[in-house]
Amino acid sequence: MKKRTPVQLPEEIYPDDPWVLLEDQFAPDFLYLTETIFALTNGRIGVRGSLDEGDPHHIIGTYINGFHETWPITHAESAYGLAEVGQTMVTIPDGTLIEVTVDGEPFHLPSVEIIRCRRWLDIQRGILERDIAWKSQSGVTVEMRFLRFVSLGRPDLIVSRLELSVDMPAEVTVVSRLRNRLDEVADAGDESDPRLAKQFSQRVLEPRAATLEDFRFVQAWVTSRSGMGLLSGMDHGLSGPTPRVTLDRSAMNFGFEFSWSLTPDAGVTIDKYVVASDNGDSPGLAERQAIGATLDEAKERGVAGLAADQARHLARFWADNDIVIEGADVETQRAVRWTLLQLHSNSACLRHASIPAKGLTGHAYDGHYFWDTEIYIVPFLIYTNPAAARTVLTHRYEMLEHARERARVLSHDGILFPWRTINGEEASAYFLAGTAQYHINADIVYAIRKYVEVTGDQEFLWEMGAEIVLETAKFWLDLGFYRSDHFHIHGVTGPDEYTALVDDNAYTNAMARMNLRYAFEVVSHLSNEDPDRWDDLRAKVGIADGQAIEWRLAADAMYIPHDRDLGITPQDDDFLEKEAWDFENTPESKYPLLLHFHPLTIYRFQVLKQADVVLADFLLGEEFNPELKRANFDFYDPLTTGDSSLSACIQAIMSAELGYESAAMRHFQHALYMDLGDIAGNTTDGVHMASAGGVWMALIYGFAGMRDVRGTISFDPRMPKQWTSMTFRLGVRGGALSVTLSHESITLVSGQPIEVIVRGDSHTVEPGGGTVVHL
Amino acid sequence: MKKRTPVQLPEEIYPDDPWVLLEDQFAPDFLYLTETIFALTNGRIGVRGSLDEGDPHHIIGTYINGFHETWPITHAESAYGLAEVGQTMVTIPDGTLIEVTVDGEPFHLPSVEIIRCRRWLDIQRGILERDIAWKSQSGVTVEMRFLRFVSLGRPDLIVSRLELSVDMPAEVTVVSRLRNRLDEVADAGDESDPRLAKQFSQRVLEPRAATLEDFRFVQAWVTSRSGMGLLSGMDHGLSGPTPRVTLDRSAMNFGFEFSWSLTPDAGVTIDKYVVASDNGDSPGLAERQAIGATLDEAKERGVAGLAADQARHLARFWADNDIVIEGADVETQRAVRWTLLQLHSNSACLRHASIPAKGLTGHAYDGHYFWDTEIYIVPFLIYTNPAAARTVLTHRYEMLEHARERARVLSHDGILFPWRTINGEEASAYFLAGTAQYHINADIVYAIRKYVEVTGDQEFLWEMGAEIVLETAKFWLDLGFYRSDHFHIHGVTGPDEYTALVDDNAYTNAMARMNLRYAFEVVSHLSNEDPDRWDDLRAKVGIADGQAIEWRLAADAMYIPHDRDLGITPQDDDFLEKEAWDFENTPESKYPLLLHFHPLTIYRFQVLKQADVVLADFLLGEEFNPELKRANFDFYDPLTTGDSSLSACIQAIMSAELGYESAAMRHFQHALYMDLGDIAGNTTDGVHMASAGGVWMALIYGFAGMRDVRGTISFDPRMPKQWTSMTFRLGVRGGALSVTLSHESITLVSGQPIEVIVRGDSHTVEPGGGTVVHL
Repeated sequence: MKKRTPVQLPEEIYPDDPWVLLEDQFAPDFLYLTETIFALTNGRIGVRGSLDEGDPHHIIGTYINGFHETWPITHAESAYGLAEVGQTMVTIPDGTLIEVTVDGEPFHLPSVEIIRCRRWLDIQRGILERDIAWKSQSGVTVEMRFLRFVSLGRPDLIVSRLELSVDMPAEVTVVSRLRNRLDEVADAGDESDPRLAKQFSQRVLEPRAATLEDFRFVQAWVTSRSGMGLLSGMDHGLSGPTPRVTLDRSAMNFGFEFSWSLTPDAGVTIDKYVVASDNGDSPGLAERQAIGATLDEAKERGVAGLAADQARHLARFWADNDIVIEGADVETQRAVRWTLLQLHSNSACLRHASIPAKGLTGHAYDGHYFWDTEIYIVPFLIYTNPAAARTVLTHRYEMLEHARERARVLSHDGILFPWRTINGEEASAYFLAGTAQYHINADIVYAIRKYVEVTGDQEFLWEMGAEIVLETAKFWLDLGFYRSDHFHIHGVTGPDEYTALVDDNAYTNAMARMNLRYAFEVVSHLSNEDPDRWDDLRAKVGIADGQAIEWRLAADAMYIPHDRDLGITPQDDDFLEKEAWDFENTPESKYPLLLHFHPLTIYRFQVLKQADVVLADFLLGEEFNPELKRANFDFYDPLTTGDSSLSACIQAIMSAELGYESAAMRHFQHALYMDLGDIAGNTTDGVHMASAGGVWMALIYGFAGMRDVRGTISFDPRMPKQWTSMTFRLGVRGGALSVTLSHESITLVSGQPIEVIVRGDSHTVEPGGGTVVHL
Repeated sequence: MKKRTPVQLPEEIYPDDPWVLLEDQFAPDFLYLTETIFALTNGRIGVRGSLDEGDPHHIIGTYINGFHETWPITHAESAYGLAEVGQTMVTIPDGTLIEVTVDGEPFHLPSVEIIRCRRWLDIQRGILERDIAWKSQSGVTVEMRFLRFVSLGRPDLIVSRLELSVDMPAEVTVVSRLRNRLDEVADAGDESDPRLAKQFSQRVLEPRAATLEDFRFVQAWVTSRSGMGLLSGMDHGLSGPTPRVTLDRSAMNFGFEFSWSLTPDAGVTIDKYVVASDNGDSPGLAERQAIGATLDEAKERGVAGLAADQARHLARFWADNDIVIEGADVETQRAVRWTLLQLHSNSACLRHASIPAKGLTGHAYDGHYFWDTEIYIVPFLIYTNPAAARTVLTHRYEMLEHARERARVLSHDGILFPWRTINGEEASAYFLAGTAQYHINADIVYAIRKYVEVTGDQEFLWEMGAEIVLETAKFWLDLGFYRSDHFHIHGVTGPDEYTALVDDNAYTNAMARMNLRYAFEVVSHLSNEDPDRWDDLRAKVGIADGQAIEWRLAADAMYIPHDRDLGITPQDDDFLEKEAWDFENTPESKYPLLLHFHPLTIYRFQVLKQADVVLADFLLGEEFNPELKRANFDFYDPLTTGDSSLSACIQAIMSAELGYESAAMRHFQHALYMDLGDIAGNTTDGVHMASAGGVWMALIYGFAGMRDVRGTISFDPRMPKQWTSMTFRLGVRGGALSVTLSHESITLVSGQPIEVIVRGDSHTVEPGGGTVVHL
């Protein structure tokens, strides 16, 4: 794995506080980074960590999960069945803006005389704070304290506060805005961001009715093409001297301008409540009233009350889900907690949605959902917030008709999920690394199986899961074919996108085998459990007699490449025939390869973006013997560039499993600092959510050595030498299993009886006391 | 090969004339077809066979070879090294328009009362004629005779004439226009033609200076982005009563309006001379004067004189290059001659250009040059117009710097020619069926080798050919690699585009081997022939000592797939592992497959667009034994859909070689009626030039069984039973070899001694008398 030097944040003044991520000076060169790592979200609405005053900035963005505009995909050369409609998460009007002017001088950090300037994310409470003192040209020292959070309990709400005071009389103006930057940019024809501006050369949000009442402004919008309705509004609570108020009225950029002749004896506090909500179709009066009610409630509760709610919500989260590492340095503990906060806050208020590749911290990848969620994030959700895991998987069920239609377009039975999507339609314009990644079907089934087995939510299987499992089994049986007694799947791209359009990709075949076998099991299981209900489901899905047997036979006949000479699993049937990549003569500057080599050049060589055989060895670990897994890791790790952010965490887990301690730590650090250290170099685009999920997995599956094969929890700990203990909790089948791991023992506590295997030996953890297993 | 029912043209009144292609009534339903098959060109300028009066029409187009606009290629998902600049041949202002109004009633075929309406292409003279009589609502019978041709001797000239008379006094108006339809369409935002309008949402041609003098109008234009200059003009000669003249002045649509109060005693004749010429950069006064001189000359020669020149030019062509088939039906003979006219007229006046996929008969494929020219048309040119063959190959040399840069972008040594281009830059936006077709390099070298060996033009090799041959050899050596003593080339797409991104495509490897071997030979040959000149060339190209040996070793080690069990050449190393396509359950309506199946679906199966192994067996026939060629044909022919128009002709040649007489005739007819019968269903887009070249090849290489291995002419005739004789002439090394073939004998006449092999026996044909060889 190629290493990048992690970016160093400015020196911290709370070096010993693992709950605070601090920027202790104005660091304009790091804005690109802090906008992402200080982003705030609740999974429903998200806002980037841009400055309250707006400028300077890199990418300002507020997003609603799933709220998107569509656009016709222009293929330079088209072909039958290519994705035709692009989907892009919309940058909705920005309500973070609070502009301050003192004696006519705008507060603009690069221009003013700064006395003190600190910003920090309170990880424990989920609040971003700023503490600033500056001196105006008129000689006034201005003290300002900003606070911002996205409510984890109220899905549509963003809260800001500014406390401001002066040391001598001054004319102070504060403009609080709701600004539709996206269409300002589109109108200006700015194409500086190719991912958005290129697509949206025309207006995205059409303004509809607006309501203005006291310090409240609510604007309705409708997207031009997808026709989605949006309500976006703000309200204010002021304390201190009464301001003069003027309005800056335009749909694109609405502002309340509050002005004071301020004296040192009385500061002002401006509380800002920003709401945004999509409403399916064009929002009408009723929706505006509903959002008004949200503003009423928020205002009534007040910023202090809402902040207390936020702290209380997170206190519960940390109590249940913190991972405490003793013996690690404070940076590691803080980075782990920051990562857990990303995972939790990007999923806390999910509804009819999944988690985009960048969560709601940036609009890269267009806000699309990928397999990342099912394979890299669902495990975290299953153990920390199973309702969110269910929502993610339910959202796949909500895409079922699109997936059925997509399979039909591809001339296949069953269903084929989109490689990337918001609304369920395939939005991948590059099918070689998109639609060809058929493994998405099995990835989703894998997540369903794990969810059902760990949570015991059998009802989900009946209601939604089974239909997905059975329809995907139909798909695999149709996609593949028999040749000389083996079942083959040709013409696919596996997770490793540095190799494309191959025959018998080991990952795909192994996951398809799991999918087919699980479908067979589901049929047996459900038909036994409730024959009548099964008859209904069978009729609905259209399962013929004997069809499940065919799935089982295909699974048993599934061809998994194996090379006897090397004793490894070739990535695909031809992988070992490829030319060796000349790593020695590839300078650091040529990574990631995809930015420096034509795809055809990359495809021709034995070089990986991520090691998908190693991933299969982890996900389906029980199916492969330890010697094979070791040989695979030893073979692929040196060929793996780690140019994918999905790579390091898996390499960490398998290094740990195989006892490669230093490699495990190296890969873990790579994943852990993916964003805080900008290791991939593109943190500015948003948090790498899959890698964040991967950090949790590397801790739990990697260092703690947890496995959950078919729902049975086991541990084979591989904790790093320098750590002295790890403490965490896992939600299992409605209960909680608390784990404290040291080098000598593992202590298990559970509120209900649970069978746990430690290094091969089964232990029943009974409620009421800890079970200590010596290692 | 799937068959389509050929389109039936209206019944002909010259059924016995193999020189006339006649449409004997107004056939609006066939406009889409006649615009193409009545298109006229000289290879420099081309005009579609639209009606003189303009409407109704399908696609009106006038083109200059190589005159193109550029545009940024928008990749829905981009990657390093993808083509970035699109190129599209521009539809230049249309000078064919001659609009007639009688007593205020426009002549518009769908509206007027038609008495007589015939249109025919005089294949012998290269002139399109119309003979029309119609009755106006005012009761006037109007007799009109149109004539149109593109001068084969004057590269920039299109000539039209209208003779008009009336049977009673009438007010007659004739408007002769020069109309820039392209930008009218762009201005209107019409996107009905996705290939053009989508690209050109902004204006393409910017009007510059114009000159108006008597009945002459010349307009200068410059393309908006590529900055190419164009001069477009018209002049008129009128005879009969003096008209009143008014002008319709606009740069977009300039018209001279001629009006008469006409009487039955005196008709009018309007001669129209249209010129168009590109001028590299913005055209200035000098260029306008030069084009004025062209108009002066044309006008002085007059329409009758120019038509006589046209007939004289073609008389020479037919004398040298007609293929006379006795015993065939008149349709076959006519179709053969129409095809020869397409081939000749699309190459007669080439300069600094190649032949686009549709020639100058339509703008499909954006007017791009492909391998089609080198592999399918250059053989015709070598034997009929070697100067044109030299121009085509010289144009490749003119692209050398672009090809060098392209290889560098792909991280390779040497040069890589663009898969499709006008200006030498890669313009293929779909690299899987574009850049991945590396075989383009070897295709060009193949054409160079054949050109040099058949014409004896050794100087071309010294000046240009050798550099291409050596630089492509460098490329192949770098692209491929050794594994267990064999030289492999991975990750390519062969000519069969229904299979993509494969390892060791047999066609590519065999052609690369030819390329490498020929490079070795060229080095030996040139260094012997002129050591000093060779030293200069070697220094220029940068050939190290021993480098040629490496090429030879790689060629000798080249891996060509072979399957012992089937005794065939697998199309690539994995082709036989693919699933069988279910031809039985693929209805006719699902062809061509590419319009009904996703590429991923097609790639997965044993199904071909064209049989590239069979093509290699033809092109490199001497390298493969007859049993293998037969086995290959027998295996691949049933898997070949013929969805490519490049397929049928090659299948015809190999069927003939193998003695499959009925298959040969079936495939030949498929190629012969590709456009006249609209067999591929897209003749409206322009003539399938490669298939036209393939018809010539099917006749000469197929039925006459000619081969020209290393420049030696041989015959193994396989003439269809129903034909009694074939007569044709081949230009060889500056001389001409006349061939008359019957079922009993082959008669050879040559003006210079030439060695000819007939069915394995060598014969020296001496000048002054025929050599008759009994078969």
